[in-house]
Amino acid sequence: MSEARAPQVVVLAGGVGGAKFAYGLMKALPDPRALTVIVNVGDDFEHWGLKICPDLDTVCYTLAEMENPETGWGRRGESWRVLAEVERLGGPAWFRIGDLDLATHLQRTMRLRKGEPLSAVVADFCRAWGVAARVLPVTDDPVPTWVLTEEGALPFQTYFVQRGWRPRVRGFRFHRAAEARPALGVLEAIRIANVVFVAPSNPFISIDPILAIPHVRSALGGKTVIAVSPIVGGQALKGPAAKMFRELGWEPSAIAVAHHYRGLATHLVIDRRDAAQAEAAASALGGEVWVADTVMSTPARRVAFAADLLRRWHQAKGPSEA
Amino acid sequence: MSEARAPQVVVLAGGVGGAKFAYGLMKALPDPRALTVIVNVGDDFEHWGLKICPDLDTVCYTLAEMENPETGWGRRGESWRVLAEVERLGGPAWFRIGDLDLATHLQRTMRLRKGEPLSAVVADFCRAWGVAARVLPVTDDPVPTWVLTEEGALPFQTYFVQRGWRPRVRGFRFHRAAEARPALGVLEAIRIANVVFVAPSNPFISIDPILAIPHVRSALGGKTVIAVSPIVGGQALKGPAAKMFRELGWEPSAIAVAHHYRGLATHLVIDRRDAAQAEAAASALGGEVWVADTVMSTPARRVAFAADLLRRWHQAKGPSEA
Repeated sequence: MSEARAPQVVVLAGGVGGAKFAYGLMKALPDPRALTVIVNVGDDFEHWGLKICPDLDTVCYTLAEMENPETGWGRRGESWRVLAEVERLGGPAWFRIGDLDLATHLQRTMRLRKGEPLSAVVADFCRAWGVAARVLPVTDDPVPTWVLTEEGALPFQTYFVQRGWRPRVRGFRFHRAAEARPALGVLEAIRIANVVFVAPSNPFISIDPILAIPHVRSALGGKTVIAVSPIVGGQALKGPAAKMFRELGWEPSAIAVAHHYRGLATHLVIDRRDAAQAEAAASALGGEVWVADTVMSTPARRVAFAADLLRRWHQAKGPSEA
Repeated sequence: MSEARAPQVVVLAGGVGGAKFAYGLMKALPDPRALTVIVNVGDDFEHWGLKICPDLDTVCYTLAEMENPETGWGRRGESWRVLAEVERLGGPAWFRIGDLDLATHLQRTMRLRKGEPLSAVVADFCRAWGVAARVLPVTDDPVPTWVLTEEGALPFQTYFVQRGWRPRVRGFRFHRAAEARPALGVLEAIRIANVVFVAPSNPFISIDPILAIPHVRSALGGKTVIAVSPIVGGQALKGPAAKMFRELGWEPSAIAVAHHYRGLATHLVIDRRDAAQAEAAASALGGEVWVADTVMSTPARRVAFAADLLRRWHQAKGPSEA
């Protein structure tokens, strides 16, 4: 073949942070089809009798530029007519499903009930929404995350939405993950990837449940794995990551993230604000640390950040791999 | 007891025609709580993974003054955002579910899946919607109507909506009706009723499936049963009733309706336009025929029609029953 093959990129992602990061990569790559986003499904649950996949939907909506910038989840231009009526009839309204979002859950649930795998449904949805990157649930099997708290084990969404992540965390259980199989395409995408990114998603409840699926972690062995710290200035940009580090006995910091990803990531990207921790983080990781502007406050900054990382990765590869 | 008890009224009803007639009765009665509407559930089916009860919903929406006057089904002020999105994702859109209507199906399906009987769910919905009359599905058991056509047996909604009631009809099958039990309250309501009305609904697919539930027909024995002809001037006001009479070998007319209700109704109400058929209809029925303005084109006319019938019934009873 005379043409150089575009570098194949994989990103492991949870919800909002993962979606923004994946969006940046998709836009920064010469061909969006070179990107495969492997998404956490530990947050998935049944509600209103429907299968809800919050992280998958956030990733797809974001890549399709249909995401709701105000809420950080759900659809742009959303309305809430069904929810209001369900509530009027005494139905549960603590998990807020918008009208447009509801269509996704309805059609997905219909197809899953017919026995179709989740990954096939997501592929069709992405086609309908014009998403050129490939979005894969890490597994088609249900692997519900349970959060072990001081108040007992809670199903993920009960902990996260209904209880507003207030209960103190002691650990996590990735139920049935050990018996799950990676979705078709997941291991192959990792195998042919030139580089794997770990999005600045919550390590405990977004990335670890991906790694808990058999063969995923081992497939990453020997790869260039570039993780982005979700902790900036001792805080999570969104969600309970910092609180979880603390409750599990770690001071939330880039160093703690480096410890967490030791043995997985070859590189850790930390924010400029945490530059002073670079050396200690590199030691904790047993790998390389890059300092960058990691906060993706606008779509343009997401793309710039991803382009910056791809450039550094390309330079770091050296001529033999170029 | 010194107070005279309000007369207890039962009406057997299908969808639109039944709903309008029940509305008139509810408004014409001194106390709406004296009315029990026993509703056909043979049209019920699963769609989008949800349990849809078209006749029950039309009756409830109409009694709550929430019905859509433009479509004749569904909710007033309806929107179609979910449907448009489901269709975009390749989902079925031939049965048009509006956003407000969808909430009914979602919450009903959630509760049925928990094992609650349909009648209990409907009772709660009516409370939430401010419906003072009692609305009862004739049975809590699934009794899907199949339409036997020249193209074979079709599930009701396939025949009715998807095929636009075009296939020629040979008969009907009320699947599992023989093993169904009347919903709690149905037989009791009939037992204590002073008068039972049969709404001007389709005799074949709205009224007969009610009568097919064990013990319902026998409970009506000895009662004053006043049926309203759904055929006016040889035509059905709405839907396939006239077409069905014809395909089953009957000229659609008040006389054909009288034949159909012989042994069930003690009285048949026919429209002024069909006054010439009164004598023949009375003979076909083996009962009394009343001529009236039966076309309920406005809410006011529904109430006037019901009030007229209640007045005639009261006069016909004679002093001993008054």
